[in-house]
Amino acid sequence: MSTSNACTVSQSRASVVRLMVPSDANFMGNVFGGVILSEIDRVAFITANRHAKTLCVTASFDRVDFLAPVQVSDVVDFDATLTWVGRSSMEVWVQVRAEGLSGTPPHPVAQAYVTMVAVGSDGRPVPVPPLALETPEEHARFAAGRERMEARRRTRHAT
Amino acid sequence: MSTSNACTVSQSRASVVRLMVPSDANFMGNVFGGVILSEIDRVAFITANRHAKTLCVTASFDRVDFLAPVQVSDVVDFDATLTWVGRSSMEVWVQVRAEGLSGTPPHPVAQAYVTMVAVGSDGRPVPVPPLALETPEEHARFAAGRERMEARRRTRHAT
Amino acid sequence: MSTSNACTVSQSRASVVRLMVPSDANFMGNVFGGVILSEIDRVAFITANRHAKTLCVTASFDRVDFLAPVQVSDVVDFDATLTWVGRSSMEVWVQVRAEGLSGTPPHPVAQAYVTMVAVGSDGRPVPVPPLALETPEEHARFAAGRERMEARRRTRHAT
Amino acid sequence: MSTSNACTVSQSRASVVRLMVPSDANFMGNVFGGVILSEIDRVAFITANRHAKTLCVTASFDRVDFLAPVQVSDVVDFDATLTWVGRSSMEVWVQVRAEGLSGTPPHPVAQAYVTMVAVGSDGRPVPVPPLALETPEEHARFAAGRERMEARRRTRHAT
Amino acid sequence: MSTSNACTVSQSRASVVRLMVPSDANFMGNVFGGVILSEIDRVAFITANRHAKTLCVTASFDRVDFLAPVQVSDVVDFDATLTWVGRSSMEVWVQVRAEGLSGTPPHPVAQAYVTMVAVGSDGRPVPVPPLALETPEEHARFAAGRERMEARRRTRHAT
Amino acid sequence: MSTSNACTVSQSRASVVRLMVPSDANFMGNVFGGVILSEIDRVAFITANRHAKTLCVTASFDRVDFLAPVQVSDVVDFDATLTWVGRSSMEVWVQVRAEGLSGTPPHPVAQAYVTMVAVGSDGRPVPVPPLALETPEEHARFAAGRERMEARRRTRHAT
Repeated sequence: MSTSNACTVSQSRASVVRLMVPSDANFMGNVFGGVILSEIDRVAFITANRHAKTLCVTASFDRVDFLAPVQVSDVVDFDATLTWVGRSSMEVWVQVRAEGLSGTPPHPVAQAYVTMVAVGSDGRPVPVPPLALETPEEHARFAAGRERMEARRRTRHAT
Repeated sequence: MSTSNACTVSQSRASVVRLMVPSDANFMGNVFGGVILSEIDRVAFITANRHAKTLCVTASFDRVDFLAPVQVSDVVDFDATLTWVGRSSMEVWVQVRAEGLSGTPPHPVAQAYVTMVAVGSDGRPVPVPPLALETPEEHARFAAGRERMEARRRTRHAT
Repeated sequence: MSTSNACTVSQSRASVVRLMVPSDANFMGNVFGGVILSEIDRVAFITANRHAKTLCVTASFDRVDFLAPVQVSDVVDFDATLTWVGRSSMEVWVQVRAEGLSGTPPHPVAQAYVTMVAVGSDGRPVPVPPLALETPEEHARFAAGRERMEARRRTRHAT
Repeated sequence: MSTSNACTVSQSRASVVRLMVPSDANFMGNVFGGVILSEIDRVAFITANRHAKTLCVTASFDRVDFLAPVQVSDVVDFDATLTWVGRSSMEVWVQVRAEGLSGTPPHPVAQAYVTMVAVGSDGRPVPVPPLALETPEEHARFAAGRERMEARRRTRHAT
Repeated sequence: MSTSNACTVSQSRASVVRLMVPSDANFMGNVFGGVILSEIDRVAFITANRHAKTLCVTASFDRVDFLAPVQVSDVVDFDATLTWVGRSSMEVWVQVRAEGLSGTPPHPVAQAYVTMVAVGSDGRPVPVPPLALETPEEHARFAAGRERMEARRRTRHAT
Repeated sequence: MSTSNACTVSQSRASVVRLMVPSDANFMGNVFGGVILSEIDRVAFITANRHAKTLCVTASFDRVDFLAPVQVSDVVDFDATLTWVGRSSMEVWVQVRAEGLSGTPPHPVAQAYVTMVAVGSDGRPVPVPPLALETPEEHARFAAGRERMEARRRTRHAT
């Protein structure tokens, strides 16, 4: 694997901070899970595009658990990091934390592994730059990401 | 399990049909995965509320694979069915099919198992009616749903 | 009229189910009439496009009476059926029913007859397939639809 | 009819001007009819509220014909005038004109008669001020509005 | 400066009236300042386009003071008038007034001077028609606008 | 000024990253200036709320120059930092940078000084914690912020 055009993890990292407003919520003030998933998809899209420098589409979301309710007026932080990169596929890890307006400390509300694929104008996969790993933590995440990718392939073939 | 107040699967089934418009898509006309996930959450919310007759919140999404791209002008059908019901938790199976405007036949684009929990005004889980199963297919889906629920619990404890 | 390429009423029927959320409503929780009309237009658009297999535009709405208020948290069902088809024009009958979250049974809130016209890329009317009528009810609706269409033409010429 | 608290037609008149943007349109650049109807409802709501000085809800829309297509980038003017006022009901006449960005002169694209009803916090009709008519044209419109209202009542009883 | 194709101030004047709804506001019912600024930009865009008869983009906003809070259910009026026109630049003066639903009289909530520039399809400035001044007030505003424009240029060079 | 409850600049800093989508833009693909201003207001709101730990409202925007066009598909970064804090007022400095999808390096497109005021539930100003300055740069920004605040007061009195 040539790394001449490799990009680092920090080059594509993206962070979105969003204030939750009434139109994000149901009638009890609880933010819809789908609003959180939609923002996870947007920030994963930004990270994948920054790395691939071409259009990317969402291939899959791994299981997402909602750990705590999100309320209107919470400030929610979506942090996206590339963990693993294949030929055209990329795994983006998105961590979601909410913080109450009145000083409730930030706490995790969800996390997701999103698989994005770089595509050309014909919609077919195109190659992306390799990922230049810089820290032991990034190496460990890459290995774990490769295992998840293989597990996804096995599950998909089984169904 | 008393079934005096049990509700059938068909009583809570919900179907949403949506035309995809430019504001759902990126600049190449591809609908964002997050838009699909957000609609899956909405229709699962409707089905769970119809069964529970009280407010429900999203607890988790199982893995979602996007099987085919969705384009602006596609008509997309989201079909939600209850598969399994516990004390306060419900598993909703959502099938997503897209149909091209010019007569491209409907084809699957995604499916998801969404776990919803019925909550009271204090946000704590409240019991829901049992599910009255009527067909062998519904019995089989219920058993498979219970297995997925147990697998979710095992995975969650492991992490 | 050759019916070799005729399409049945059920082939184009469309049903949209939507949860009403705070951004659909005024400050008292009443959903705006315009939100209901906008959804009626969308589902009529889907039905007309399914039949015509080409782009359709809205030509007119017959009078719409709002029979009962719609509240935030209601689940509203929009059911669209083709009643009459001319050369390029189609009449779509949309029935709207609302259902309260806490088990209030579905009740009619509005109905509308929407006239859609199939157009080419130059915006001019193009022919659509004939409607294959299958039941006595569909025949009766077709006859009533033709009368409404003739009444619309008379009224339009008078003004 | 006491006119001590009567309000004139011009006191409640409202005009909305809106630029049509891509999210208002289908994939061919045609603005959805439902977007136009939704704006008609909003401006009628403003006019009725200005007259009634209390919350108003939409009771009905008379037939709306779309006279010319509206495109993305058109500037559309919605002009709302009270024509007739009863005890709790008001008829608002909305004229819609579009103007092309490049200087195409304003031309009518639709008009509507919207019936609004003033309601209290319990949702029941409440009385509104009488309409102080000032010109022969306003007197003529009031008489025509009363005839339309009576025709609506006859039609509603017949169905 | 030839005035053969000059346009008057009243030819491009635009007025937008908008009802503030829950999705415009934070969780206390206060409308976001950014919603007001966004509408100011839209109405200035309409006025500039009407004068230039070509696409315009926003070059700058002068300081905007929010004089009074705007609430959900207020009806807000945005009134845009051309004050000064250069070769490709135009200064649009937007006055914003709010009116309470229950008859609170209209009162100023903000005003802004927006500089718009006419651009061609390549994004470069293109000339616009001169402004035909008709009243002493318009002449005074034009002179004041020219002074503000010169002050803007000086400030920009200084930074 | 007691600094016992003082908060640092970094404690309230907020960064929003947003992908510009077709619904943010006019028909040429240019993002509306108002969309940028609206996001500036949102991120300033987050920063002010984090510092004040109570609801804040926008008091004013200083002049905003748009330095370069923003296109659909650009990823735009809004970075908000507190510069000056008074009794109830706070000055938030927002820097806006855009980055093209295909690797165009981030470049400044706008900056703004937004004045926010902390308010109680009655809408009246309430005191906020002092700002704990930690670096020479923060001290310099604070002094410049105080000068801008005094200049704003002088200008406001003059008009």
